Amino acid sequence: MSQKLLVVGSVAFDGIETRAGKRDEILGGAATYISLAASRYCQVQLVAVVGEGDFPDEATRMLADRGVDLTGLERVPGRTFRWVGVYANDFSSRTTLDTQLGVFAEFRPKIPAAYARSKFVMLGNINPELQLAVLDAVQGEHFVAMDTMNLWIEKARDALGAVMRRTDLLTINDEEAYLLTGERQIARAATAIRKMGPKAVIIKRGEHGAFLFHADGVFFAPAFLLEEVVDPTGAGDSFAGGLLGHLASEDRTDFAALKRGMLFGAAIASATCEAFGVERTARVTREEIDARVAALRSLTALDPT
Amino acid sequence: MSQKLLVVGSVAFDGIETRAGKRDEILGGAATYISLAASRYCQVQLVAVVGEGDFPDEATRMLADRGVDLTGLERVPGRTFRWVGVYANDFSSRTTLDTQLGVFAEFRPKIPAAYARSKFVMLGNINPELQLAVLDAVQGEHFVAMDTMNLWIEKARDALGAVMRRTDLLTINDEEAYLLTGERQIARAATAIRKMGPKAVIIKRGEHGAFLFHADGVFFAPAFLLEEVVDPTGAGDSFAGGLLGHLASEDRTDFAALKRGMLFGAAIASATCEAFGVERTARVTREEIDARVAALRSLTALDPT
Repeated sequence: MSQKLLVVGSVAFDGIETRAGKRDEILGGAATYISLAASRYCQVQLVAVVGEGDFPDEATRMLADRGVDLTGLERVPGRTFRWVGVYANDFSSRTTLDTQLGVFAEFRPKIPAAYARSKFVMLGNINPELQLAVLDAVQGEHFVAMDTMNLWIEKARDALGAVMRRTDLLTINDEEAYLLTGERQIARAATAIRKMGPKAVIIKRGEHGAFLFHADGVFFAPAFLLEEVVDPTGAGDSFAGGLLGHLASEDRTDFAALKRGMLFGAAIASATCEAFGVERTARVTREEIDARVAALRSLTALDPT
Repeated sequence: MSQKLLVVGSVAFDGIETRAGKRDEILGGAATYISLAASRYCQVQLVAVVGEGDFPDEATRMLADRGVDLTGLERVPGRTFRWVGVYANDFSSRTTLDTQLGVFAEFRPKIPAAYARSKFVMLGNINPELQLAVLDAVQGEHFVAMDTMNLWIEKARDALGAVMRRTDLLTINDEEAYLLTGERQIARAATAIRKMGPKAVIIKRGEHGAFLFHADGVFFAPAFLLEEVVDPTGAGDSFAGGLLGHLASEDRTDFAALKRGMLFGAAIASATCEAFGVERTARVTREEIDARVAALRSLTALDPT
């Protein structure tokens, strides 16, 4: 039976410049990408905050149309979180030009009663103190996935450790995994992370795919080869959303389910990169995703599939 | 029936410094790595040149012990090719400190009569004029694989094009593929390269694995995850050697055979990185290779293997 996925994280407006062009004030934020990706496979319950004056009905309508439950989307006085960044020509790095936290600075996640028994929880990349507050608010058995970043590794190590001890699956970039562990090799970093609490860890390498380290083995999901990348913003979040949404849809969390889910995540993440912001993430169809999952399976298959 | 593999390229002494240590005057050269890797699977016929005064019997004995036919190894007055380089701490780049071509400067490959009907030919990374001379000297049907580098792409484009038109399989690094084609994406670069002649192209990405682009499809071989890299010198050549040796051993060159061969190449390439120079390449056993091939298969398998 398909389960619900509770998603906590940022909803934002992004200004993005890549070699493909430039966009201002487009809908973004980790929780937006996670929710849109997961909503292809399960019902999503979103917990986030936006400014009551500047967040357009068009955006809430789009999320609601895709089955995202917005009971937990707070609207408070002030401005929605804004981020502006520019990508290197080869997409190997990006530079933040501006960050305005706005209402996100005072974000304290409130979990609606209807969300508290969600069996799947995705803690987007926010302050680990807030991630902990979410875990304290949910009830019953649940599978917890979390993301984090260098800011929290450097500034909130204790709280981050406390979240990790209550986490089933950590998704993290390779460079962040090295920073977190002091290791400089992916398998060693994964071993060190699993000792910190998470039963499984997915180390993401962008266009070079993602590794899952799990008690039952190691799995590698290649990235789908795109002829043109337009905007990689949100690809990692879309990956996590596709993965978690697929797990929730199957109501399974074993090694085999995680492996399958990663291919769905990789498929949606590739779509995310094909347009600015959430344009493709919001519109990619299950048929398009299935075709990419099939291509990813065939990419590493020794025998014809 | 296992076929023979003709290997043409450099035999050298290398000075190598990595974060793991430093070695001077150790045996190296593309043809050495290719031959040692391929010799696990087929009989290798080596065409190369070394200095008659400075090339030790110990090295020729080691190659001969592994079944490498040295009829085509010329010994001429002068010094053997020497290369000295240092790797960045994260192995993402290397800097050449010294190159002394020695007898390699006047190398004109001479193909012994006993080699001319070899069914498999691997043209290591040398001047494409010399690669052409080899193709003119071999007879009958043969499967030709070639490697090249930025030097020849920039300085010998016409000759390189002539070799490519007579090549079945080009192996090339991603950055070199971009330089060769003017593309900046791997699938586009592969399409452009296949229009230049090679029926198939393998684009190598070091620790991020290798892609095969072929009329029958695309295949990705992950790299074997090493906990410690000591010296990546020769990894790409060991990959090509393991692949070609495996093809020759099966006497097959179809898409499925290329895919299988890539895993054997990746397995041997990973061993090469575990010690300085050819130390591991020369000693890795078929059992160790088989175990790594099995691990590579399981790394991307959705179902238990």
